This record gives sequence, C-alpha cells and structure tokens, in this order.
Amino acid sequence: MDRTPVGPEQVAAALARLREAAPLVHSITNYVAMDVSANALLAVGASPAMVHAEEEVEDLVGIAGALVVNIGTLSPPWVRAMERAAARAAAQHKPWLLDPVGAGATPYRTDVAARLAALRPTVVRGNASEILALAGAVLGRGVEGRTRGVDSVHTADEALDAARALATHLARVVAVTGTVDYATDGTRTLAVRNGHPLMTRVTALGCALSGVTAAFLAVEPDALAAAACALGVFGLAGEIAARESPGPGTLRWRIMDALHRLDGAALREVKIVEA
Amino acid sequence: MDRTPVGPEQVAAALARLREAAPLVHSITNYVAMDVSANALLAVGASPAMVHAEEEVEDLVGIAGALVVNIGTLSPPWVRAMERAAARAAAQHKPWLLDPVGAGATPYRTDVAARLAALRPTVVRGNASEILALAGAVLGRGVEGRTRGVDSVHTADEALDAARALATHLARVVAVTGTVDYATDGTRTLAVRNGHPLMTRVTALGCALSGVTAAFLAVEPDALAAAACALGVFGLAGEIAARESPGPGTLRWRIMDALHRLDGAALREVKIVEA
Amino acid sequence: MDRTPVGPEQVAAALARLREAAPLVHSITNYVAMDVSANALLAVGASPAMVHAEEEVEDLVGIAGALVVNIGTLSPPWVRAMERAAARAAAQHKPWLLDPVGAGATPYRTDVAARLAALRPTVVRGNASEILALAGAVLGRGVEGRTRGVDSVHTADEALDAARALATHLARVVAVTGTVDYATDGTRTLAVRNGHPLMTRVTALGCALSGVTAAFLAVEPDALAAAACALGVFGLAGEIAARESPGPGTLRWRIMDALHRLDGAALREVKIVEA
Repeated sequence: MDRTPVGPEQVAAALARLREAAPLVHSITNYVAMDVSANALLAVGASPAMVHAEEEVEDLVGIAGALVVNIGTLSPPWVRAMERAAARAAAQHKPWLLDPVGAGATPYRTDVAARLAALRPTVVRGNASEILALAGAVLGRGVEGRTRGVDSVHTADEALDAARALATHLARVVAVTGTVDYATDGTRTLAVRNGHPLMTRVTALGCALSGVTAAFLAVEPDALAAAACALGVFGLAGEIAARESPGPGTLRWRIMDALHRLDGAALREVKIVEA
Repeated sequence: MDRTPVGPEQVAAALARLREAAPLVHSITNYVAMDVSANALLAVGASPAMVHAEEEVEDLVGIAGALVVNIGTLSPPWVRAMERAAARAAAQHKPWLLDPVGAGATPYRTDVAARLAALRPTVVRGNASEILALAGAVLGRGVEGRTRGVDSVHTADEALDAARALATHLARVVAVTGTVDYATDGTRTLAVRNGHPLMTRVTALGCALSGVTAAFLAVEPDALAAAACALGVFGLAGEIAARESPGPGTLRWRIMDALHRLDGAALREVKIVEA
Repeated sequence: MDRTPVGPEQVAAALARLREAAPLVHSITNYVAMDVSANALLAVGASPAMVHAEEEVEDLVGIAGALVVNIGTLSPPWVRAMERAAARAAAQHKPWLLDPVGAGATPYRTDVAARLAALRPTVVRGNASEILALAGAVLGRGVEGRTRGVDSVHTADEALDAARALATHLARVVAVTGTVDYATDGTRTLAVRNGHPLMTRVTALGCALSGVTAAFLAVEPDALAAAACALGVFGLAGEIAARESPGPGTLRWRIMDALHRLDGAALREVKIVEA
C-alpha cells in the first residue's frame, strides 16, 4: 500500500474505468435492499445481478467482476449460498465484500457474520455498531452489546480501533460509515467527509453503498482506494441530491440521478483525507 | 377505554413521542412491501428491522418496541417464523399487528390468517374484503366470498360489523381501510377521513400503514388511539403528497417527504371523529 | 392471425378495456422486480397479486386473468411453484407469460427457463441474449454463449430468428426487447419503436413490462396484438417520462405517472409497424 492520495482526479479516473467496464456485480443481498442496490449499481455504471440459489451462485461468481454478500434478511438456505459464493470468490481471487447488517442484534446474525468474515472478505462495510459486534465476535474484543436492530447506536469514531483490528486480522479493508466515513487497511486510515444526515432516513442506502463499493473493487485493485472512491462518490451523490430534496422520499431517487450524472467537475467536492 | 377524543393535539403528541423514542419495529412483511414499509417507518421517525428467520425472530421481538406480521407473500417457513414471533410478542405483552393481506383469496391464505389471528394480535389492519374473510374464517360469520387478489371488492362500511366482532373476540382493535377508514375496539368506533384516491394506485401503502400503526403502538398504550393516530397521519401524508403529484409514481415518494415533514400545523387537518 | 394493423386506436381500445376490467395479474416474479412490477400494473390499471407458495398458486391462477412467471431470483421451491402455476394456467387456457431473466448466465437458470418454456407459455418476453440462450437450450440452435448476467450483450435484431423459431415451436408469441422491440408469432413480426435509452439504467423495467404484457393478454385474445400494445404503451410511458427526468431515479417513477395518465392523444405517438 503506497501513500498515494485519493484525490478527485483518482476518483474520477476510477469512476471512468467503472463506467467503461460496466462490471457485473453479483449481489446476494437482502430483500429490502435489492431494488435500491440494483438501481444504484446501474446508475453508477455497473451491471447488477441478484442471484442467491445454491445451484448457481458459484457459476455466477465465475463470470462476475465482484461479489457482495449482505446478511440483512438471512435464513439458512441463503447463508449456505453466501458461504459457497464467498468461498468461490476467495478461491478465484475475485474481490468480495461482506456487509454484516444487524450484526450484534441477535446471536444468529452475529454468528453468521463471523462465519462469513472468516472467509476473508476483501472489504467489510458496516455501521459502527455492526463493526464493533463483528470484531467482538471474531476477535474477542469487548464490545458493549448496544446494537439495536440495524441502525447504529455508536459513532464511526468509536468503531475505528475495531475496524483496524478486523482489517489487520481478517479483511483487507474495513469501511465504517457514519457522520464521517472511514476506510482502513489496519495501518492506513482514510476519512471521507461527504454525505448528508437525511440519508439516514432512507432505508438500505448503506447496502447500496456496499454494492457500489464492490463495483469499484472490480476495477480498482487497491482495495483501500476502491473503498474510499465508493464512499466519496456515494456520499457526494447524497449531498447533491439532498440540496433539492424536501424529504427522504425524493432524496432516495435523486441519489440515482446524481450517481448517473457525476462528472469531473462535481467530483471536485469529494473530500477524502488521511485520518 | 375512555372517550377522550383523538384530536390533532393528541396525534401531534403521539407523533412527537414516536420521533423521540424511534421505536424498533420488527417487521415480518411481504417482499413487495418491504421497501415502502421500511421507508415509511424511517420517514415517520421509527427504526425498521426486517427479520424473518425462525432462528432469530424471537430474539428480535425481545428488543423491539412492536411487531408487524404481514402475510402478503407467505410460504411455510415464513409462517412458522410469524407464529413464533407473534407468540413471543404476546408472551412478552408487546404490541403486535396482523395484516391479513389477501385473506379470502385462497384457502391457504385464509387459514394462515385465521391461525395468526388466534394468537390475539393487538391490532388487525386490513381492507374490507380481508376483514370480512378473516371474520368469516375465525367467527363463522357468513361472508360473501368475493375477495379477489389483494384489492378489496367491498367498502369499509360493509366490513364494520365484522370488524367489531373481531375486535370483541380476538384482537384488541381492528382497523378497516377504504375511502373512509375505521378503527374499532368492538364498542367504540372512530372514523378517519384522510387519504386520497390516488393512493390505491400505489402498491403496498396499506402494508406501510400497518408498519406505521405498529410504530404508534410502541409509544401509545391505548391501541384504539394508536390506530387512529396512524390512520390520520398516514392518510394526511397521502393527501398532502397528492396535491402536487401528477400520478402514483411521484405520490409514492412524496408521501415519505410528507411523513418526514408533518408538524403541528399540518396535523390540524387530521380528521378523526366518532363513527 | 389476420393482418390488422396495431395502430394507436387499437392500442387505446385495448388500454380502455384493461382499465375497465382491471384484470388480476398473478405474478411469480423476482424480488428485485416485485415493487416496480406491482406499481406498473396498478399504474396501467390492473390489479397485481404476488403469490409464490406452492400451497396456493394453483388457487390464485384460478381467479386470475393472466399469469407472469419470471425467473430473476429463482430457487428450487419457487421453481416448483412456477411449474405448478404455469401448468394450471395452461390447463385452464389462461394466458401466461414467461420472462426467462438471465437465461444463459448459468446452467441452472438456462435449464429452468427451458423447462418452463416446455409448458408452452402464451408469450415469452426477454432481451436478445435471453431469447438466444433459451432458443439454444430448447431448440438446439447454436447460440454464442455470450450472455453475461442479466443485461443483454446482443441486439434485438440478432435474436429475431431465434424468436421466430421459439414462437413457431413453443410459445404463441415471443417478444424481444432492445433499442427496437419486436413481437413475433413466428410468421408475422411487429416492430415497436418506442422507449428511451435511459430506461436501461433502471432495474427491472423489462420485468415490469412483462407484467404489463400479461395484463394486456388478459383483455386482448390476439396475443401478438396484446404484446405489441404492451410494448408500445410501456415504451411510450418511458419516452414521456424521460423528457423531464434528469436521471434514472426520477425516470423510474415518472414512468408510473405516465402509465397512469396515458390517453388517446398521447397514444398517437405509439409506433408499431410490420417488421
């Protein structure tokens, strides 16, 4: 990992590669997030495929540019497919992202997140409570069990140590999202200061961001840079959309418009700095 | 049940408590409704969690403020989870709502609705055809089997007697939605005259209303008042959204904007009266 | 099949019948498409019901005007329900449509599509890659296995011969969508020149079109005319919506507004010609 800054030009270059390659992003994600994730992937320039049957996930990983595994609405048949897909991605050295939605909310959910994390995702992306719960489960670090449902009760700052530890031991990169977003590989940490508070009033935007992160992983081999690009692009699209949205309903769809329209001029507002 | 009117001030007070408490609403709902329900819950100020695995529904009920069970896209594994979640909610005296989507359309669906109703939901909310079919199944009342799919072929007025009977024998409160909405505890009945006809051209708004009703149940112990507040708030949001919507596509999302923005001044248009 | 042109008046008449009859469209479709399909059906004037349990699909087919089977997010229990529903529709001479989403992307998916096609759908609707893959699987025609995920890598023109062959041997009508859409019964082929490129940046619009096609099949016994009407109506709604949409997010919902508002004047822009 060199110390190249991830500035607007690098983000614009990565986004241009994404739009050129239109990578197939195999998404095993939750029912709530499927629509918004697929639309975000199409808006940013990728090609989503939501496929979850054990009978075909390995075949689809074989033709995909990246894989997302999101445990939001899990059940045993889905977990089996997630494990097979993740193992195949790992075996084929394809980038894959784990989104441990709601880790900490129930023992079953925390356990599944930990088992998937053991398959060494390229990136883990979650909110602070999820990252703390996952680190507690796989690394035995003390986590105050304050997770409640799927919305975080911690700030991203509180989860930074846990994120660094996870990145050191299991994932290549961990992204923690909140008022400020962070991406860390365990030694280097980037802070991304884009986004808007109204985004927390729209469901599954974090899941959609995970999808967009996977799309960047398909075209950017530096996983830390890919995560930072995704955080910047998605947060900036939310900011732009929020400027003219009277509420979260309108925001949800203007984010898609903004993702589709982002260009070099707009991307100058991406704010990625060393943390 | 006292006879306190449910006026704009009471609605505003309940909504303020909801936004302050941000109750976790555990939703076992159908695939079509998940996105709009989660967004409506976030827009009104609650925290949705869509969780359906038998392995974890009881744990989630334990940390939730209220539970919604909606049978729109049911299958045996989901029904087992619904029953476990509802039984746990009942055992813990947590409010839970049954939305018997499409009861009457197929024998399987009517049977599942009846079995869930036997677990004594705090509130049942459905359209007229669903309430008539459910009453017919659990109380043996003659119902003309005219249900067709999930859209009602009866008016809410036609279902009022069935609603009162269900509320007397099984649920604490039954809400029937239509051109005029009703909420009844079997003796007292409130009519809510908000809403807009264009809302019938958007899918799953009834399901989303069920979610919002559960959110009010989490902060308002009087189940009849909670149901009336939800009917008023959701219907009014639809009215406000319809004023500037050229069609059902725009309406769908402006409802979220309106739910998010509702304040005391807007709530003066809530129309809840004794029926 | 006579050679009656399918002009704006015929489209307007079919749409008027659809709105008058409000046919129940039984949809066994994928998780990504459920919301947009249900909303498109409501916007155009039909009544959607998403029902997938083996325990009730045959009963629902019995009261439905048409059936859609879409394999986007398939798994074995869903496939069993699809087969039962399709067989029942065929036995009852009810129109049903097969949408072979992603055929060609994995062997499992291609095999399921072929098994469903063997049940003789009234209409098959897919993109060019899907139609080529399905024809290859069921008719043994050489297809270059270039399908990638769910987005087509072929033009509709490239798939016309395969579509005609499928229509001759298995389905009554095959619709292939792309920059220009085609509907063929094997001997007669209609080209529909509506639609807008931005529609490819919104997920599941093809699936929603399949639902709308089924709605027309419920009110128009000439399957070729029904398919052409649906292609024209849906494509035109997309064109109208695109005129004032800054991106795919806004487009997605303005299509619903446009479907709801289409009238005789607007329908004069439908462009259906002999191919």
